[in-house]
Amino acid sequence: MEKSALQIARAAYQPKLPKALKGAVKAKEGKATESVGNQKEIKELFPNTYGMPVVEFVPAESENNEAVNVGVILSGGQAPGGHNVISGLFDGVKSLNKESKLYGFLMGPGGLVDHKYMEITDELIDEYRNTGGFDIIGSGRTKLEKVDQFEKGIEILRKLGIKALVIIGGDDSNTNACVLAEYYAAKKYGVQVIGCPKTIDGDLKNEQIETSFGFDTACKTYSELIGNIQRDCNSSRKYWHFIKVMGRSASHIALECALQTQPNVCLVSEEVEQKQMTLDDVVTLIAKAVADRAEDGNNYGTVIVPEGIIEFIPAIKKLIAQLNEVLTDPATGEPREFASAEEQIAFVKSSIEADNLAVLESLPADVARQLCLDRDPHGNVQVSLIETEKLLSRMVDTKLKQWKSEGKYCGKFSAQHHFFGYEGRCAAPSNYDADYCYSLGYNASRLIASGKTGYMSIVKNTTAPADEWVPGGVPITMMMNIERRNGANKPVIRKALVELDGAPFKYYASHRDVWARKTSYVYPGPIQYFGPTEVCDRCTLTLALEQGKK
Amino acid sequence: MEKSALQIARAAYQPKLPKALKGAVKAKEGKATESVGNQKEIKELFPNTYGMPVVEFVPAESENNEAVNVGVILSGGQAPGGHNVISGLFDGVKSLNKESKLYGFLMGPGGLVDHKYMEITDELIDEYRNTGGFDIIGSGRTKLEKVDQFEKGIEILRKLGIKALVIIGGDDSNTNACVLAEYYAAKKYGVQVIGCPKTIDGDLKNEQIETSFGFDTACKTYSELIGNIQRDCNSSRKYWHFIKVMGRSASHIALECALQTQPNVCLVSEEVEQKQMTLDDVVTLIAKAVADRAEDGNNYGTVIVPEGIIEFIPAIKKLIAQLNEVLTDPATGEPREFASAEEQIAFVKSSIEADNLAVLESLPADVARQLCLDRDPHGNVQVSLIETEKLLSRMVDTKLKQWKSEGKYCGKFSAQHHFFGYEGRCAAPSNYDADYCYSLGYNASRLIASGKTGYMSIVKNTTAPADEWVPGGVPITMMMNIERRNGANKPVIRKALVELDGAPFKYYASHRDVWARKTSYVYPGPIQYFGPTEVCDRCTLTLALEQGKK
Repeated sequence: MEKSALQIARAAYQPKLPKALKGAVKAKEGKATESVGNQKEIKELFPNTYGMPVVEFVPAESENNEAVNVGVILSGGQAPGGHNVISGLFDGVKSLNKESKLYGFLMGPGGLVDHKYMEITDELIDEYRNTGGFDIIGSGRTKLEKVDQFEKGIEILRKLGIKALVIIGGDDSNTNACVLAEYYAAKKYGVQVIGCPKTIDGDLKNEQIETSFGFDTACKTYSELIGNIQRDCNSSRKYWHFIKVMGRSASHIALECALQTQPNVCLVSEEVEQKQMTLDDVVTLIAKAVADRAEDGNNYGTVIVPEGIIEFIPAIKKLIAQLNEVLTDPATGEPREFASAEEQIAFVKSSIEADNLAVLESLPADVARQLCLDRDPHGNVQVSLIETEKLLSRMVDTKLKQWKSEGKYCGKFSAQHHFFGYEGRCAAPSNYDADYCYSLGYNASRLIASGKTGYMSIVKNTTAPADEWVPGGVPITMMMNIERRNGANKPVIRKALVELDGAPFKYYASHRDVWARKTSYVYPGPIQYFGPTEVCDRCTLTLALEQGKK
Repeated sequence: MEKSALQIARAAYQPKLPKALKGAVKAKEGKATESVGNQKEIKELFPNTYGMPVVEFVPAESENNEAVNVGVILSGGQAPGGHNVISGLFDGVKSLNKESKLYGFLMGPGGLVDHKYMEITDELIDEYRNTGGFDIIGSGRTKLEKVDQFEKGIEILRKLGIKALVIIGGDDSNTNACVLAEYYAAKKYGVQVIGCPKTIDGDLKNEQIETSFGFDTACKTYSELIGNIQRDCNSSRKYWHFIKVMGRSASHIALECALQTQPNVCLVSEEVEQKQMTLDDVVTLIAKAVADRAEDGNNYGTVIVPEGIIEFIPAIKKLIAQLNEVLTDPATGEPREFASAEEQIAFVKSSIEADNLAVLESLPADVARQLCLDRDPHGNVQVSLIETEKLLSRMVDTKLKQWKSEGKYCGKFSAQHHFFGYEGRCAAPSNYDADYCYSLGYNASRLIASGKTGYMSIVKNTTAPADEWVPGGVPITMMMNIERRNGANKPVIRKALVELDGAPFKYYASHRDVWARKTSYVYPGPIQYFGPTEVCDRCTLTLALEQGKK
């Protein structure tokens, strides 16, 4: 593997560890816990892993020093810092006992089921310290949720003498980690399962988890690019840039990027839903900003759009639900077949309710067509194929032309489009993520040594210097409730959406009128790994605001 | 202006200056020069600025210390380092004499014609040192080429007592700077004109100019993103990423990014043209790489595509030329009008030659339609609207399906698309660009003090430590020849295309077979402004290879 100069220099970085993890530790247990919702149902589903206490690690005189073989899995989409979770875990299990071994299952949870694995050695891990990506063992999206998968898994775990499995993933993967923990506990298989909170989307957080790893680095990478685009836009003064960022279920990324870069407009899906906005409301909101700036002679600006916005507009959500319904054959549950695209469109139009038809017809023709025609293998409308940033700018253009004809707008409108996602998921972790992830991994080894299962590795107080970070564990059941998924009730970790009464959104809301009208751009620049601490070690503004540190 | 932590820390950076510029200097003149082509014609067009010697600055005992008022213009697209050219120029003219003043004309060359300007003060320039963007005075694309513009310009120059004008721009802007220099010299207006070589495209270079500024930073920014995408692609192992980068006239950016990141495929427009490749040849080349990697079980990869590729494919170039011809009314020279889109398409198809029709019909239907219909205000086909990266991936998909049906391909093909341009044009300059630009600007003040006009500011030997850099000036006429532009012969600076026998391309060509088949990705990471010199101060691989330093 040929390495860049930065990669070579960065390999030498020693991630910071909380003081509490630097020597021997013991688990200090809190009170019994309850799930965040549906306590009775969750307790019934997880009799062996429900109600366990939150734990915090505190210094001890000595530790359990038996060798322990551990397995690790990277699950789902990449997030910066995954390699550091593994290197922290590696150093952690080796610090317990040098004879301990760490095995990585390949290409995600599927590796456990298919018995594809490799031992993680000193030489190997040294190639990956402080690097981005999940390429050390690869990642995948196989869902661990069936008994036969669990049984296939135990075969290889026994063969390798693995006593604990660490699953690094988002909310779904951690839910499944808990199901697996419960299953192995019920069967008394003697294998612990520990989760780690990963996702760039930032929607796996709660009172116990300050942030999911990768959010910091990904948002900083997107903000670098948004800042660069804003500087361009403020130099040539002729384009409105519509910038879509990842985040289908929640708008944390869009909001964090807006806090970092101060664009003219940032849409927040949760607000759109709460205010019951229509697509026209959203378009009008943007067009208003364009028209207001045009009055000041500023025919340029930036709009940040969260990937999931369309699905949060209630009228469109309703339309999509009905499209999915009418395009499915109720007799078979299979997607309906049509002789031609035209026939399919005619069928759709004659089958949906009048208000849904009105919404469909309010969309640009090609988007409406795409919504009626393109379906995924399950027969569902493919909302993600819609290039929302282009849809919005076209509708803004149409609205502005109308306003111009009415004498309400006198500017020029020309748009550019961007979508940032893959650009940030595998960036080399920022100091924050490098330290946080390493600590999460190292801490996981202590949860294992303490005999815990069904816990997620957590590190709290991360806006303080790393020395003061508080490592521990939280029972995964504590974060669960029952939700409807694919037509069935399931125990799941509750996703953290942007809270409209939370400090980050309130900060944005209290500044957005000024940012909309006046050019107030901030240019964060690229992530720095060397240099002054105020440049290299700052956390996200979301976290700083949540903790009252800004 | 609210500043990011990085911006505040970076403001303190003191760009390096060549040793030769640190004290008093004098111009050491070389021999009389000739233009690179059409010597007779260029000499006739530029009687006052032709044949001047190349100059180099060497230490002197003392300097001309008279105050001099200078004007500066940012022309055309943004490039990282523009603010440092201005800060170098500012410090340079102030070091000559504290009473000197620097005026910036606003929003590009149009500011000179429209008399829009501002004085650049100490306080102002300090806000912009080492920052990206052209927002200090804005930029614009007005072309200075007409006598009435020159006369409008001299009015304001006289009013402000400006004796020298520095134009920061690409090849066209520097050509126009020379035309202006010649005009003012012929009229004995007593105003010098100096150019500075700017463009992220890297196509303004020659024996005298090592590189155009901004190329370094822009390529590093794109390479950061390409590296991140490659790491993602190497982690999830399921997508082929088609990444288009800026560069319509030349492929230097694509090539430099390829050298930095080692993708599976990089297209080079100049090679496509020289080898007379068809679109099918290009598609086959990519499909072959996909199929070969699929044989090894690797259904993922990266393809870098220069923005201008389509126009370099000879058959498409010919088709476009004929489309432009038949869509113009020969009687009026105006775009032909049609009653409907269908009528327009029918007319096109019946009017073009059989081989052009065959090429048109080989394109995906919507692209062919777009080519026939969309025209710019001059009536020209809008090639730049074609999303080349998507066009190529769709055609590769079609080709692979055909191969699959023939049993020649057994993989899965799924594509993602990216286009990077605005993301890099206004990044904060790398150390290389910060130093190079500051030196170019500072050096321009010495060309002014030496009484030069029609010169471009140059700094050579930039792969050596900055102390050893060689500052000087080159007569702009030396870089000119006569080319056909918009139906007329014009004196222009010859654009530097990628040379297929040059070291950068040869390095790529000698490695590409391995890179195509084997995953050989390099992850450069973001530009670093602090930290080890091998990380922060490296130049582009293009330059290093050209100078035999790699």
